[in-house]
Amino acid sequence: MFEQMTIKDFTDILSTKEPVPGGGGASGLCAGVGMALGSMVANLTSGKKKYAAYQKEIEEILEKAEKIRAELLDGMNRDAEAFEPLSKAYGLPKETPEQIAAREEVLAGALLDASNAPLALMAKILEAMALMERLSEIGSKLAISDVGVGAQLLLASLKGASLNVYINTNLMKDRALAESLNKKANRMIMQGEMLTQVTYERVLKTIQ
Amino acid sequence: MFEQMTIKDFTDILSTKEPVPGGGGASGLCAGVGMALGSMVANLTSGKKKYAAYQKEIEEILEKAEKIRAELLDGMNRDAEAFEPLSKAYGLPKETPEQIAAREEVLAGALLDASNAPLALMAKILEAMALMERLSEIGSKLAISDVGVGAQLLLASLKGASLNVYINTNLMKDRALAESLNKKANRMIMQGEMLTQVTYERVLKTIQ
Repeated sequence: MFEQMTIKDFTDILSTKEPVPGGGGASGLCAGVGMALGSMVANLTSGKKKYAAYQKEIEEILEKAEKIRAELLDGMNRDAEAFEPLSKAYGLPKETPEQIAAREEVLAGALLDASNAPLALMAKILEAMALMERLSEIGSKLAISDVGVGAQLLLASLKGASLNVYINTNLMKDRALAESLNKKANRMIMQGEMLTQVTYERVLKTIQ
Repeated sequence: MFEQMTIKDFTDILSTKEPVPGGGGASGLCAGVGMALGSMVANLTSGKKKYAAYQKEIEEILEKAEKIRAELLDGMNRDAEAFEPLSKAYGLPKETPEQIAAREEVLAGALLDASNAPLALMAKILEAMALMERLSEIGSKLAISDVGVGAQLLLASLKGASLNVYINTNLMKDRALAESLNKKANRMIMQGEMLTQVTYERVLKTIQ
């Protein structure tokens, strides 16, 4: 859906008050762009004599990167899908005790879904980051700067998605559940920061 | 030009061996997406009683953000424009001493242009970051996470653009010129990191 919009139209609607796309959709998009740079580097490496020893691995990376990119871009749609029930839940009546109880239950479920969508995106971004880390080692040195750009875009998207976890867990009544989801997000942020640091330092060392 | 492509088509071509778009175009795109999130927050703040004291400033930010977003997205095109002469320069003949001298001169000019394009993008990204920093103070708290996402995407784009400075200055014969351009990029990275840290910490404090 969103991936069929032009860049102009997508950023136009992103800039408006419309509830979706928002930060979650922006994170999915830029993560997909980051992964596309990984595919580009793999394509520029594939078939080159200098990297012949890694040809098979490069082909495997390329195949994975193509799949992950489609999933990251689809994250834009999943974020929107998770948001709708949440905004509906807020609109439920809360006059009688029964209505309040029913609303609480629907809201709890919607908040969990709205937290799980960015958590799933984060897990997918980590897969992308692992490919970038490997490409910083075995990818064509002529395209090493593109590995660095992709790695940074993935890290920004990871952090962006984590914010969408926190805003939703923040509103949960079940604090134990909220804390366990926050911990998941925090752990992925740490992993992502470490992976990106390794990748980026390797890139800078090569081009500076 | 690139902004009229669908997200699907843009990431498809980005992932191929085609020389453009590359890391520079990806940085321009994601910076534009980051700035669009700034406009979104300004739009969600505008007209709200709670933020009436800042209404005029919010309108000014919105006007600037719209302009900056268009310029950031246009950075995708400018990056491509700067790349073409560079790849042509590399193709110039270098058989005779005259040809070598002529090629050196054209190449030096093309490398300077290819460094100035990402430097101009970086300067524009810093303008966007300053708006995000202010929005983290006076923007609607309901949309504060989107300020955080936008700020991270802008920082990633700033770092991404800097890599395109370094790869080009790296190839310059005039080392004094190369060093002065690198210093410009380094200074902007430092400014951007400081600005983003202020913005992001404010966002995390609000939502965590």
